[in-house]
Amino acid sequence: MAQDWFERYRETLDGALAASETRGFWSAYPEVPSGRIYGETAKEDGRQAWKSRLGGRFELDQPGINGWIDGEQSPYGIETGISYPRVDLDILCESVGAACTAWQQATIETRTGVCLEILHRLNQRSFEMACAVMHTTGQGFMMAFQAGGPHAQDRGLEAVAYAYREMKRCPTTATWQKRVSKTETVTLEKTWRIIPRGISVTVGCSTFPTWNGYPGIFASLVTGNAVIVKPHPGAVLPLAITVEVMREVLAEAGFDPNVITLVCDSHDEPVAQDLVTRPDIGIVDFTGGNAFGDWIEAHARQARVYTEKAGVNSIVLDGTDDVRGTTGNIAFSLCLFSGQMCTTPQNIYIPEGGIDTPEGRMSFDDAAAAIVKAVDWFVSDPARAAEVLGAIQSTHTAARIDAARSSATTVLRDSTTIDNERFPDARTATPLILQVDASDALQYQQEAFGPIVYIVRTADSAESIAIAADTARSQGGLTAAVWSRSNDVLDRAVDALTAAGVSTSCNLSGQIWVNQSSAFSDFHVSGANPSGNATLCDAAFVADRFRFVASRVPVPAPVEEAVS
Amino acid sequence: MAQDWFERYRETLDGALAASETRGFWSAYPEVPSGRIYGETAKEDGRQAWKSRLGGRFELDQPGINGWIDGEQSPYGIETGISYPRVDLDILCESVGAACTAWQQATIETRTGVCLEILHRLNQRSFEMACAVMHTTGQGFMMAFQAGGPHAQDRGLEAVAYAYREMKRCPTTATWQKRVSKTETVTLEKTWRIIPRGISVTVGCSTFPTWNGYPGIFASLVTGNAVIVKPHPGAVLPLAITVEVMREVLAEAGFDPNVITLVCDSHDEPVAQDLVTRPDIGIVDFTGGNAFGDWIEAHARQARVYTEKAGVNSIVLDGTDDVRGTTGNIAFSLCLFSGQMCTTPQNIYIPEGGIDTPEGRMSFDDAAAAIVKAVDWFVSDPARAAEVLGAIQSTHTAARIDAARSSATTVLRDSTTIDNERFPDARTATPLILQVDASDALQYQQEAFGPIVYIVRTADSAESIAIAADTARSQGGLTAAVWSRSNDVLDRAVDALTAAGVSTSCNLSGQIWVNQSSAFSDFHVSGANPSGNATLCDAAFVADRFRFVASRVPVPAPVEEAVS
Repeated sequence: MAQDWFERYRETLDGALAASETRGFWSAYPEVPSGRIYGETAKEDGRQAWKSRLGGRFELDQPGINGWIDGEQSPYGIETGISYPRVDLDILCESVGAACTAWQQATIETRTGVCLEILHRLNQRSFEMACAVMHTTGQGFMMAFQAGGPHAQDRGLEAVAYAYREMKRCPTTATWQKRVSKTETVTLEKTWRIIPRGISVTVGCSTFPTWNGYPGIFASLVTGNAVIVKPHPGAVLPLAITVEVMREVLAEAGFDPNVITLVCDSHDEPVAQDLVTRPDIGIVDFTGGNAFGDWIEAHARQARVYTEKAGVNSIVLDGTDDVRGTTGNIAFSLCLFSGQMCTTPQNIYIPEGGIDTPEGRMSFDDAAAAIVKAVDWFVSDPARAAEVLGAIQSTHTAARIDAARSSATTVLRDSTTIDNERFPDARTATPLILQVDASDALQYQQEAFGPIVYIVRTADSAESIAIAADTARSQGGLTAAVWSRSNDVLDRAVDALTAAGVSTSCNLSGQIWVNQSSAFSDFHVSGANPSGNATLCDAAFVADRFRFVASRVPVPAPVEEAVS
Repeated sequence: MAQDWFERYRETLDGALAASETRGFWSAYPEVPSGRIYGETAKEDGRQAWKSRLGGRFELDQPGINGWIDGEQSPYGIETGISYPRVDLDILCESVGAACTAWQQATIETRTGVCLEILHRLNQRSFEMACAVMHTTGQGFMMAFQAGGPHAQDRGLEAVAYAYREMKRCPTTATWQKRVSKTETVTLEKTWRIIPRGISVTVGCSTFPTWNGYPGIFASLVTGNAVIVKPHPGAVLPLAITVEVMREVLAEAGFDPNVITLVCDSHDEPVAQDLVTRPDIGIVDFTGGNAFGDWIEAHARQARVYTEKAGVNSIVLDGTDDVRGTTGNIAFSLCLFSGQMCTTPQNIYIPEGGIDTPEGRMSFDDAAAAIVKAVDWFVSDPARAAEVLGAIQSTHTAARIDAARSSATTVLRDSTTIDNERFPDARTATPLILQVDASDALQYQQEAFGPIVYIVRTADSAESIAIAADTARSQGGLTAAVWSRSNDVLDRAVDALTAAGVSTSCNLSGQIWVNQSSAFSDFHVSGANPSGNATLCDAAFVADRFRFVASRVPVPAPVEEAVS
């Protein structure tokens, strides 16, 4: 059956392999939530499937369940009330260990086929997933559908493709023949097996649980590891549905479904520290804040740890041919999901002498005011604001906005709430925009996750670039954007920022924003600064999850055929 | 010039790339120390080049030199008396940092061409290198030539090929085009740069300084990192010559030679701990004992650490079609370089009920005696013994033999010296063979580096296999060999041992031994047990030494051509 799946999705896999080499635009799973693509009733079916879970227990037939955990809340203020199983880690891990053997001994094609079928079924559940993502992360529906569904599936497929390619790098068998003297030839038949690290743990995040979680989950699974999924207590449902689908497909393919399991915890009784430091855990994938990510890197020493943390993302504004287009583009980047993307810009560096425009120099104050105005326009329509900004996932983020405001000397734009017609109790916040001087490093040279923006007044663009690069090196950084009319400034910015491991976008305009990271083309997080040690997805992300281990046996040398 | 080099060695690179995929026998550098291959005077020229260094200073024009270090000694008991520069790490690292920029900005082809030219020149110096390796490690001349010269060069080339392939995985530029609405298409021009981790340190070992050192040195160098080479104080010359050649080629290619530098220390004033934990060090490659390897893994937290440590290698002797051939093959493996290879077998598991042979059951005692007899025969000819066993690199190894003997209850064969005609003061030792019971775990379930062999009496081969695999999991293990007339036993041994990350050879006979690891075909160290966390050489060994970091800029969509 899994072999059939491999053949069925062969074209998808080949497309992913080709796209990851050419890195043009490619996608396996349609991002448009259209009835013509997903079926006319798909949206309503998905919503009903989601609704049917509310107020009940999320049943999973896995070992060691010893209670139920609730506490997940919708940032949109509605009651969801789902309980998730609590498990005994010792019992669970013992079952997971036993489940591994057949999975790791399966062929590469079998494991790949299973993963591709899982991705296909997840794709069919994209509307249900959209509801689950929306009402845990606070994303607007469109983003929840796209980033939580097809884009996450693309990221998962990307990891499967990378891992498949790495596993096929070494043949299963080869004949090694060496002439060792004038009369003697040694011939060895060599066989290589793929030996996984064992049990892999994914520690999920609260804002993009599937998009950030799938790469590690699929990379570990397809290379023969068992995977324990530990969602963020605030965003369990998207990964619980994922585990449910994965267990269903594994069982259908004849494998022990405990190859993939779910471990839930609560804010009051966290288990992640105990889990990731267990001696039987060989791999940890983490997405989340720097404090816990750093802790895992320091303490989960028995495992190979892959982290996607956070950083301080920068915009260097030196000049533009189109002030309105540029400030609109910046405003959208700041507003999208209320700044709760790890790719959202935080610091906007503008020279005190202003910026270069076709109409001449635009002063610092006018440039800053133009950004504020663009954000104001964006949030002026409540329906648009509700969809684009969504809701605030965590009360900590809401509190962070208050703290930033109270410690600021110059507030250019205060954060406001959004009048969300459909969800009147939604926790919302529009961008807070503060002005600081370059010398106020303590204020802006640290991450302020959420809709908090610093406009930093610098001596000139050379200083803007230098601070942006230095901050990435010390605090981490995932993205940077630069606008300039000078090729020299653009070159210097790209040189400095890419050297600091920051992906850099130049003079963006129109329907493309610095926050966007596209599977098969954009590497997400470079791993070259403190914002993480891994990249989604490159060879380094997959190749260390397994080993080729050989056996070799001499065979009689083949008799050379006489020329007839 | 470097571009010319890339073209000149293109065929060599292509051969290496192909061989690493097919994994049949292939070699770029001839292993036969023949005048017809290397030039009729090559051997004598190499010996003279080596001799001319004796008693003098090894001059290197690198910054921060503040003294001279000696103390390197030939295990063959002759005076070498070479002094090496001592450097101030702060001054050196500052210069290295400055030297990096142009190197990392060079094209992939330029860096690859430089590395291939270095390997070519090292190959031309193989006879000089053989003398240097012989009189630091204690290897016999033939092994010193092959393992220190062409085989090490092959391992270096293998790393260059793997890294080249990984760097070419992502294009330099690509056009990304996405239709974002019915009327609008976004087109981005994306450019990827290779961003190395920065400065890489190789901590060399005393027994195979070039063979184990080249993979990490070349993998880091070709991916744009600067490399600091810190040889073992007992085996400096082979890596000092290597650094000299590398600096010469870098300078010829127009690069700052400080891209590669040498840091020497002494047993009394070691610098490796200070060096590998410096914040500016991004990569560490280590080969050596488990204690210091574990320390580096635990403390060099700012760097990506690759270790090749040691383990307890096993032989499972269940039966054989050819007692004489098998015991002869085992004896050679035990004698080669006096057991100072990390691939040398240490524990030989034999069932108390004896082994299966065509002549019927051979008792445990007779089987053990046959191994002893084969070793005795091997060392009975002093000239053969001197060449195959070489000398003992370290006085610690010599002391270890005495300690093992004195703690043993049953000595089957005592270690003896070899009458080395050419080097009467050589430190030599033939294998010490001890007998223990399976229950004497404390004695044999730890590494005893050097010519120390335990014949372990087990209940049956099932126990032999279980103990061998468990020991690899707990203590590490690089190689295993099994001899049996039963396919079932062979299968079970291969299953258990490869699952424990141990490369396993079955029923070896003739001119092939379990110790041998061949570039482009055999992965050396699996990284899947405590004998190391890295493999020479797979994608995981190279892919994490650099990152692809992108810049992207919108371009006007190309106008679709009208059909004419």
